[in-house]
Amino acid sequence: MTARSIIIDTDPGHDDAVAILVALASPELAVRGITTVAGNVPLALTTRNARRVLALAGREDVPLFAGCGRPLLRPLVTAEAVHGQTGLDGAELPEPTVPLSDRHAVDWLVDTLLAARDDPVTLCPLGPLTNIAMALVREPRIADGIAQVVLMGGAAFAGGNTTPAAEFNIYVDPHAADIVFRSGLPLTMLPLDCTHKALMQADWIEGLGRLGTRVGQAVSALLRFYQRYDVAKYGSSGGPLHDPTVIAYLLQPQLFAGKTCNVRVEVGSPLTLGMTVTDWWGVTGEPANCTVITEVDAAGFFALVADRLGRL
Amino acid sequence: MTARSIIIDTDPGHDDAVAILVALASPELAVRGITTVAGNVPLALTTRNARRVLALAGREDVPLFAGCGRPLLRPLVTAEAVHGQTGLDGAELPEPTVPLSDRHAVDWLVDTLLAARDDPVTLCPLGPLTNIAMALVREPRIADGIAQVVLMGGAAFAGGNTTPAAEFNIYVDPHAADIVFRSGLPLTMLPLDCTHKALMQADWIEGLGRLGTRVGQAVSALLRFYQRYDVAKYGSSGGPLHDPTVIAYLLQPQLFAGKTCNVRVEVGSPLTLGMTVTDWWGVTGEPANCTVITEVDAAGFFALVADRLGRL
Amino acid sequence: MTARSIIIDTDPGHDDAVAILVALASPELAVRGITTVAGNVPLALTTRNARRVLALAGREDVPLFAGCGRPLLRPLVTAEAVHGQTGLDGAELPEPTVPLSDRHAVDWLVDTLLAARDDPVTLCPLGPLTNIAMALVREPRIADGIAQVVLMGGAAFAGGNTTPAAEFNIYVDPHAADIVFRSGLPLTMLPLDCTHKALMQADWIEGLGRLGTRVGQAVSALLRFYQRYDVAKYGSSGGPLHDPTVIAYLLQPQLFAGKTCNVRVEVGSPLTLGMTVTDWWGVTGEPANCTVITEVDAAGFFALVADRLGRL
Amino acid sequence: MTARSIIIDTDPGHDDAVAILVALASPELAVRGITTVAGNVPLALTTRNARRVLALAGREDVPLFAGCGRPLLRPLVTAEAVHGQTGLDGAELPEPTVPLSDRHAVDWLVDTLLAARDDPVTLCPLGPLTNIAMALVREPRIADGIAQVVLMGGAAFAGGNTTPAAEFNIYVDPHAADIVFRSGLPLTMLPLDCTHKALMQADWIEGLGRLGTRVGQAVSALLRFYQRYDVAKYGSSGGPLHDPTVIAYLLQPQLFAGKTCNVRVEVGSPLTLGMTVTDWWGVTGEPANCTVITEVDAAGFFALVADRLGRL
Repeated sequence: MTARSIIIDTDPGHDDAVAILVALASPELAVRGITTVAGNVPLALTTRNARRVLALAGREDVPLFAGCGRPLLRPLVTAEAVHGQTGLDGAELPEPTVPLSDRHAVDWLVDTLLAARDDPVTLCPLGPLTNIAMALVREPRIADGIAQVVLMGGAAFAGGNTTPAAEFNIYVDPHAADIVFRSGLPLTMLPLDCTHKALMQADWIEGLGRLGTRVGQAVSALLRFYQRYDVAKYGSSGGPLHDPTVIAYLLQPQLFAGKTCNVRVEVGSPLTLGMTVTDWWGVTGEPANCTVITEVDAAGFFALVADRLGRL
Repeated sequence: MTARSIIIDTDPGHDDAVAILVALASPELAVRGITTVAGNVPLALTTRNARRVLALAGREDVPLFAGCGRPLLRPLVTAEAVHGQTGLDGAELPEPTVPLSDRHAVDWLVDTLLAARDDPVTLCPLGPLTNIAMALVREPRIADGIAQVVLMGGAAFAGGNTTPAAEFNIYVDPHAADIVFRSGLPLTMLPLDCTHKALMQADWIEGLGRLGTRVGQAVSALLRFYQRYDVAKYGSSGGPLHDPTVIAYLLQPQLFAGKTCNVRVEVGSPLTLGMTVTDWWGVTGEPANCTVITEVDAAGFFALVADRLGRL
Repeated sequence: MTARSIIIDTDPGHDDAVAILVALASPELAVRGITTVAGNVPLALTTRNARRVLALAGREDVPLFAGCGRPLLRPLVTAEAVHGQTGLDGAELPEPTVPLSDRHAVDWLVDTLLAARDDPVTLCPLGPLTNIAMALVREPRIADGIAQVVLMGGAAFAGGNTTPAAEFNIYVDPHAADIVFRSGLPLTMLPLDCTHKALMQADWIEGLGRLGTRVGQAVSALLRFYQRYDVAKYGSSGGPLHDPTVIAYLLQPQLFAGKTCNVRVEVGSPLTLGMTVTDWWGVTGEPANCTVITEVDAAGFFALVADRLGRL
Repeated sequence: MTARSIIIDTDPGHDDAVAILVALASPELAVRGITTVAGNVPLALTTRNARRVLALAGREDVPLFAGCGRPLLRPLVTAEAVHGQTGLDGAELPEPTVPLSDRHAVDWLVDTLLAARDDPVTLCPLGPLTNIAMALVREPRIADGIAQVVLMGGAAFAGGNTTPAAEFNIYVDPHAADIVFRSGLPLTMLPLDCTHKALMQADWIEGLGRLGTRVGQAVSALLRFYQRYDVAKYGSSGGPLHDPTVIAYLLQPQLFAGKTCNVRVEVGSPLTLGMTVTDWWGVTGEPANCTVITEVDAAGFFALVADRLGRL
């Protein structure tokens, strides 16, 4: 089997960090590079965090490029309430040892994807879609180098987690999301409908700590910090682990179920800004543009994540 | 026990018809009058249907007034696909024998509610909110004569049944709904989240026919016709019975559960027009203005409806 | 010559007062009644002011009805900065001696217009269009009793006087304006483009005082107060006299020029809410629905107003 | 005197071509480079046209870079009705002899402007603002290398030339315009209010032909073709010459007058999309962000343009 080429576009963030680690641990995937974007915390921090995650995994060989530090039209909204001031509060992570490339993520995306026509890459956006949108506007021909886009974001019926209507990643840059959802690219979306059906339990988090590895201990500490927010907000026994669903979906799609339908992003109204309006029942007559994943085998998902983390 | 005074504002429609019948059969409720509005079908038909329902129940003594034949701003959208060309396809109903009052529903609402300060009335809107909004704009002091508004309409997390974002009653006149939801009146909303959790089963519908009454046979025939639409659309074993949830909620609130929160109606964007944006998790800081019912004891609900229909 | 039947819907307001007086002084017009609406000041004050204007003119025989005290969807915005706390600051006006009818303006409009099919009435709205919209929604058949609607409001190219995009009358109730502009009725609009081309000069205002009549002295005092606002805001030598252009247009249309084109009211965006979007060059392909008056013979206009005021 | 460094971002287009020629002919200006964008015609044609204009002027030494071929969010709208199928119909222009750089305009803009902190550049956008917006999102620090932005586009009170509310350049990419107008950069806007006050007369166009130069003859032929559209649409004796006002403003600002105020771009409503909402009277309390030029000395402007074209 040939490993599937992927690029992770990300704003770490705790769940981003776990997603990166799971991808790096999975031989089915070849991480061609990582691009960072402003989102959970400002760009300087998401970039630093991505680099620290690579250092933790001992994989600073993976190319990493900082991208856009602001959404297209709107002022940046961040999520320190969830992720802490550093964006990765809760564990001490190693500092990066390899210098940061001064190449812009959008340039690298454009060049890499233009060169990938014969071996198209799967894009895995885990944060606001600014970088992806910028690349698409600048050079529409990159579409030929993209096998598909599998992203974490949005909500079909779940309601938002940032406003009543909008999920964080889409809300932060709804205009970028609109560009991506209108792009004609094959899209798969892992929305809150899916991620809120797989809640971490305390013993699973503790189990990661008992893996006896540096990665296991770090992730266990990170997730203890991370899930306190959703547990407090929703009163549930555990919080969701959003971004790793993207990687899990690539590894074991049979753990997931959904439907391919038309999804449009609201960019016109302040009240519903950033909502992913999902025509689940096909009433609009608009063509399907996205596979919307709403179901997940939670036990299978957490087993997969733990298994892969254990390999690092 | 004193019967609670209610006014039913309605656009029959099959489920409206059942709601009216259940209300008339319930000694806990005193139906002070019925007002009709354009919605499921045009006003002339909803008015005729309401009168035929009263004739079926032998209750043409109940005052009935025709109201607005069009939404405030938008062209009328109707639902013949669901309710048939007459709005009550599926059964032969008796023709009305009492002449229709030439008084406009909005006038009657204003006068009745202004006179009801000492015995406030519960409004039960089962269709677009045009009449209620018109009365509120014309004479805001009617608020003192309204105990509460318990309405069928909207969707919190269920998605819409007319567009991906909007439920029919709100979509038909979103501006009227906005007026009502901003009115400061005590609101309770029975949205699709609730009604789609109580699906009619074939044997229940047949059981109504076996009541051996004229009403039972008529309702059974009506509901056979009615539920074919949702069964075909959603692939479920049965369809919802929306409007009677309003009456059931007044009779046995313990069958229902929900949460009081802020609800705003989208009137600014074509994509999400008529969505009832529900701040279930209290993230906006906006004050609560509506009790949103999302749970129902389906067995209890259907038992209640059948019991009351059996009394007619 | 038969006098033309008109109904003035108004929110006095200084220029409303002058418009009413000019209409009452003109034998070409038969003022069938006056209806009041909230606008420049709240309804209680606009109603009081309209009655005081009738008392000033010695015409308390003209039927007068109070209408809607609030716009359809939006909170009431008033203009005390222009008109003073009473809405008619600047002169002592006589108190009304005839009791106020308790009939609602919308009811009276509906009944009067339904009865006017054989002698249709020209509606002259001088304030927010709430009453007119309410009547149209409640009883669309009143259209047959309306010869035309000639209104003061909006702006084609002039920019707004309340927001950068919107004129006051339309801004206060943009949803009502949308109803009227979509109604299919023959509309003529006297927008800021017209009214700002006829600026009152100090000697003209003083000349009214020298008419030697009670009305002349009162109007002169009112207009001295009134124009200070626009003179200060725009730095011009005089202020516009908006509402009387409606009456002048009925009396001497040859003083005015404009174009019949498509006009739509913006109700979707906070930034441009209440703008009267005017397709002057016919680029949209939408059908013409309004005669938009953009030119006025200022000298002729002021001579006409002074002449008519001198008759009272 | 040191020449002022400018970059022209353009979508030629007849008036763009004249603007480029006037700039090249003016020793007060140093054209650091030209970037092209999709607008009047698709990118391949605007790029070809810009190169042909450089060839006509014998200035293929000026760096030229093709930029974005599509607006950020919206489908591209073009103006062949105005500019013909090539975008420069009406004259035979020389073909370019220098190869086109394969560098993307946005990359070149970012690098050039980052390096220009000590000698900031004046940006002169003559088309949709896509390239400028892309550069600002990708690298906000380019602001330090921008002295000011002087753009042709928008309308304050003039109404639009594409929709009733929107001017073409802003309408084509309203989201890009919003980014630029919110950028905090010093902006000057030459809107339709200005450009429609300087209409080309036939003898002036013919006079260019009599200059006896290749450039003069080509421009004369181009403008004969160009102005037929506006003359037919508006019934005026001549058409405007939009884009050269930007260059003329840099050369002789005393020919122009305007006001510095707040301008926001409508991106929320289909009806007014792309409108430049101008708070001329300062009623919103929003801070001034743009100098809006509404007056021009037409004779002085046309004399300046002819003089400079005569130098080539």
